[in-house]
Amino acid sequence: MSNLAPDRLFLDDLYVGQRFTSATHTIDEAQIKAFASQFDPQPFHTDEAAAKDTFFRGLAASGWHTAAITMRLNVETGLPFEGGLVGAGGELNWPAPTRPGDTLHVESEVVGITPSRSKPDRGIAVVVSRTINQHGEVVQILKAKLVVPRSPGRHS
Amino acid sequence: MSNLAPDRLFLDDLYVGQRFTSATHTIDEAQIKAFASQFDPQPFHTDEAAAKDTFFRGLAASGWHTAAITMRLNVETGLPFEGGLVGAGGELNWPAPTRPGDTLHVESEVVGITPSRSKPDRGIAVVVSRTINQHGEVVQILKAKLVVPRSPGRHS
Repeated sequence: MSNLAPDRLFLDDLYVGQRFTSATHTIDEAQIKAFASQFDPQPFHTDEAAAKDTFFRGLAASGWHTAAITMRLNVETGLPFEGGLVGAGGELNWPAPTRPGDTLHVESEVVGITPSRSKPDRGIAVVVSRTINQHGEVVQILKAKLVVPRSPGRHS
Repeated sequence: MSNLAPDRLFLDDLYVGQRFTSATHTIDEAQIKAFASQFDPQPFHTDEAAAKDTFFRGLAASGWHTAAITMRLNVETGLPFEGGLVGAGGELNWPAPTRPGDTLHVESEVVGITPSRSKPDRGIAVVVSRTINQHGEVVQILKAKLVVPRSPGRHS
C-alpha cells in the first residue's frame, strides 16, 4: 500500500491507551502572516497593530494553521501508521491561540479501534492529538478518525 | 471591535435556518502539491504516480487544504459576521476527496445560536458549512462553533 518504512503500525498493532509524541515546530510571525494571507485573511492573523483591538488581543495564528502544523508533525514524527495518515474526519477545539514564537509539539493517544465490517483490510482508529506549546498550554485538541490498514496476515 | 463593513451581522441578526453561499475557488495540482509539501507531505498529496496505488487512487488534496480553502471562502464571501470569523472549534468530515481541477464553493447554514451567560457582549453561533465541488459532491462538512459579538444596542 505504500513505500513507508516496514516498522509502521497496522490497525492490529494499535491498542487503546497507546501514546505517541511528535518532534517540535517553532512558528514565527512570518509563517503566521503567510498562512493567513493565503487562507484566513483577517486582521488578527495578519497585522499586529490591528490585532490588539480584536478578540485575540494580539497576533494569533489561524486555527487552521495550527491544524496544518499538527498534521505535519503527526505525519513526520508523531503517528507511524502504515499507509500514512488518512483522516475521515474529526472534532477540533482551539482552547488557546497559537502566538508568534510558540514551539509546538503533539501528544497523541489511541482512544478507539474499530475494524471495518464491510472492508476486512482496514479499520478506523480514533486518535486524540493535543497540540501543546512551550508553556504546556494546549492550543488544539483534535479527535481524529483515521483509516488504518489491517496487517495482511492477521485479518480473516 | 473591527474595521469591517457596517452591514456585517451581529449574533442578534442571526436566525436558525439562515443560509449563506460563498464564491468559488478552483484548485489545481500545483496548489495541492504546494500545500502538501508544507503541511501534509504524503505521496497521495504530492505525487500522481505514487498516489495511484494508495487509498485515494490518484492525487487528492490534503483534507486540511480543503479546510483552509473553505475558511478563505467563508472569510471573504461566505459568512459576513461582525468581528470576522473566530472559531472555538468544530466537527469536520471529508466524505469525498478534493481533486486537481475541482471548483469548490461553500454553502452554510446557521443551526444554533447561544448567547454567552458570562459575557453579555457575545455568543456562539453554530454553523454547518458544506464544501461542494462542480459535480455537486460534498467534499467537506464542517460544523463550526463561532464566537460572534452581540449588537451594542441590543443586549442587556
